[in-house]
Amino acid sequence: MRMYDIIKKKRDGGELTTEEINYFIKGVTDGSIPDYQISALCMAIWFRGMTVRETCDLTFAVRDSGERLDFSEIGGIRADKHSTGGVGDKTSLVVAPIVASLGVKVAKMSGRGLGHTGGTVDKLEAIDGFRTTLSDEEFIRQVKEIGLAIVGQSKQFAPADKKLYALRDVTATVDSMPLIAASIMGKKLAADDDCIVLDVKTGSGSFMKSAEKSAELARLMVDIGKRAGKKIVALITNMDRPLGYAIGNSLEVIEAVETLNGNGPEDLTEVCVALAAQMLSLAGRGTPEACAALARNAIRDGSALRKLIETVRAQGGDERLIEHPGTFAKAKFTHAVKSEKEGYIRRADAEAYGLSSLALGAGRNTAEDAIDPCAGILLRKKTGDFVRRGEEIATLCSDNPAAFGEAERILLGATEIGDERPEDEPLIYGVVE
Amino acid sequence: MRMYDIIKKKRDGGELTTEEINYFIKGVTDGSIPDYQISALCMAIWFRGMTVRETCDLTFAVRDSGERLDFSEIGGIRADKHSTGGVGDKTSLVVAPIVASLGVKVAKMSGRGLGHTGGTVDKLEAIDGFRTTLSDEEFIRQVKEIGLAIVGQSKQFAPADKKLYALRDVTATVDSMPLIAASIMGKKLAADDDCIVLDVKTGSGSFMKSAEKSAELARLMVDIGKRAGKKIVALITNMDRPLGYAIGNSLEVIEAVETLNGNGPEDLTEVCVALAAQMLSLAGRGTPEACAALARNAIRDGSALRKLIETVRAQGGDERLIEHPGTFAKAKFTHAVKSEKEGYIRRADAEAYGLSSLALGAGRNTAEDAIDPCAGILLRKKTGDFVRRGEEIATLCSDNPAAFGEAERILLGATEIGDERPEDEPLIYGVVE
Repeated sequence: MRMYDIIKKKRDGGELTTEEINYFIKGVTDGSIPDYQISALCMAIWFRGMTVRETCDLTFAVRDSGERLDFSEIGGIRADKHSTGGVGDKTSLVVAPIVASLGVKVAKMSGRGLGHTGGTVDKLEAIDGFRTTLSDEEFIRQVKEIGLAIVGQSKQFAPADKKLYALRDVTATVDSMPLIAASIMGKKLAADDDCIVLDVKTGSGSFMKSAEKSAELARLMVDIGKRAGKKIVALITNMDRPLGYAIGNSLEVIEAVETLNGNGPEDLTEVCVALAAQMLSLAGRGTPEACAALARNAIRDGSALRKLIETVRAQGGDERLIEHPGTFAKAKFTHAVKSEKEGYIRRADAEAYGLSSLALGAGRNTAEDAIDPCAGILLRKKTGDFVRRGEEIATLCSDNPAAFGEAERILLGATEIGDERPEDEPLIYGVVE
Repeated sequence: MRMYDIIKKKRDGGELTTEEINYFIKGVTDGSIPDYQISALCMAIWFRGMTVRETCDLTFAVRDSGERLDFSEIGGIRADKHSTGGVGDKTSLVVAPIVASLGVKVAKMSGRGLGHTGGTVDKLEAIDGFRTTLSDEEFIRQVKEIGLAIVGQSKQFAPADKKLYALRDVTATVDSMPLIAASIMGKKLAADDDCIVLDVKTGSGSFMKSAEKSAELARLMVDIGKRAGKKIVALITNMDRPLGYAIGNSLEVIEAVETLNGNGPEDLTEVCVALAAQMLSLAGRGTPEACAALARNAIRDGSALRKLIETVRAQGGDERLIEHPGTFAKAKFTHAVKSEKEGYIRRADAEAYGLSSLALGAGRNTAEDAIDPCAGILLRKKTGDFVRRGEEIATLCSDNPAAFGEAERILLGATEIGDERPEDEPLIYGVVE
């Protein structure tokens, strides 16, 4: 088998065989296929696409390129959720405790963030003492005992994806449906969950800018998951505007705790309940509607918040911060961003808001960058709100006041104010099962 | 400027600016753009194509990536021909002496062959003592004095093309019209000729398998040449069958000498006269028809052959071989390939015939391989000829008799024999000016 022939076949619109896809991913993993052939094939895939069968084969080859987990020791039904990534997306911090408090195991391995904002692990590290690295034994024991553990990916999961993604990132081949699906699902399937709920974001702050494209990606990933023997559904949710009011690591933990206290923003609460309901439903707890009621109840009766506190304690974090979120360390400086005119906020571009928080220190430009846990943005107004001239629309938080200028410029440039109230957009576009 | 943005723009169907193309080729030349980005862009160009303007810019950037020649010292009008490459194509050895004998200067720099058969330089090296490397001064003095010199490319011509071609060759991006045109013309324009005649081959033994595609490539290259200020035309000629009867280095020199003696094969003579006529016509010697008569006369009166003898002598070659071509060294072994059935030869696939001669030692698999100057094939029958069962259709020549089996198998497999005489195909499909 020759890589040249594989490139040429795909270039000419052919369907690659399982053997050809395995040969490709093996060569990516062991370094025997040079980068210039990998990138040429990725570009050919960008143009020609892949069939569902090819995409499944690619996903499974990526999954099998590194270690795989075995959670069978944990026992019970294990469910997880995975978001395709967005701005202000702290849903994992809310959803995982809800689901675990209702007896479904959540063995969560999360990535770090690159770009806009931190990942779930970065957010948890804003809690003093919280250990995001556990040994396999500790991790499994904790999930077994309290039903929930959240750690960073310590394993060499899907190394082929790491290599592929790095090349796609610099050769304009990221936004290819089959390559995105194989990347996300290849990593997700290396873990050992029974039920998976995908939160496919749509809009400016996400990979997929249109709801149609997002639905297509969701359909593809659900099909892949089913072929891998998983119970799986996808929600398509709005990421045209940030979710909730907080963007930035400790700011988002605080907002997640407020949500578990029953005082969270309406949009965040709604998405979290919907995600939790799907996880519970897949795990056999009833219809999604019945499970949504269970989830709301777990917030109302405090059991979900207690599960988060229990988890933080088990992983060495300072649980008093969760009990009294007002005691989280604050950024040294804040800056009020004021509206330059009067009217309705017609659009608050989520991607740009993410870039603004990145400028404040809440995210990473490269994998080596350090994150400022207190940096970020607290929105005072959101899309659809009316704002007067000079009224505060957001508070910027950072230890580096020199960053306020750029962050404010980005934020104001991404905030469109006009005379007419914008039409409401759905928060959840649909369910793909 | 970022290479990422250039790749993305082309991927999305955009037209690259002159600055973007120059940035790309500069980065290819100085090594600052990594191979994986170069190959991704080549694949995007394969899919999206390039406008004539982009292709011209690419060609000029390739031309300017290395040294350029200055032939102004030679004086007079300088004409050259360039073939896109074929099997049994010894036209340069015939055309250059004809044109030079009629007073138009031919300062010929030729490549070595890679693949099927040797290049012009490899063929000339079959003449004992012939020096294909001359100093700039020697080269210019010889062209000035006798009107003709033929050497190998010693200069660092168009290094960007060398790099690009090596990558295209392993990433399935060779057969892209703008990339082929920029490669051929980038090198050709680095020389300093006034008139250029392109011999664009069409058919199985060439880059372009259809006459339409060949005409498109010819049109593009002629347009590029004109924008570079050259007098230029292209002939589209048949390469579905080998040209003449000889394939292999010394065998082709012998056939070229026979052609200059007026005893050459009809097809070879016709193409050579047509090419010479176009060169002479561009150089101001009259209409192509009038120039064809001049060319035929230069064969008839022996002046073209004398010019070749003079050139061989000037470059240190044994001129007696040209005077008495029967004295060329012969391969140690020959093998008669006999027809397995009776009928008309309906097809003799030029590419496969080239591969058969490669197996005999007449060509190179890698740039480091040595060529056997005496190896090759003498055709006894050509497309359209009637052949009886057991009748010889070709004689294989090699110092390595172990190669006969494979060479015969390839040759017979590429020779289609049937009951009906095939329709005649044109030898020259057209002129693009």
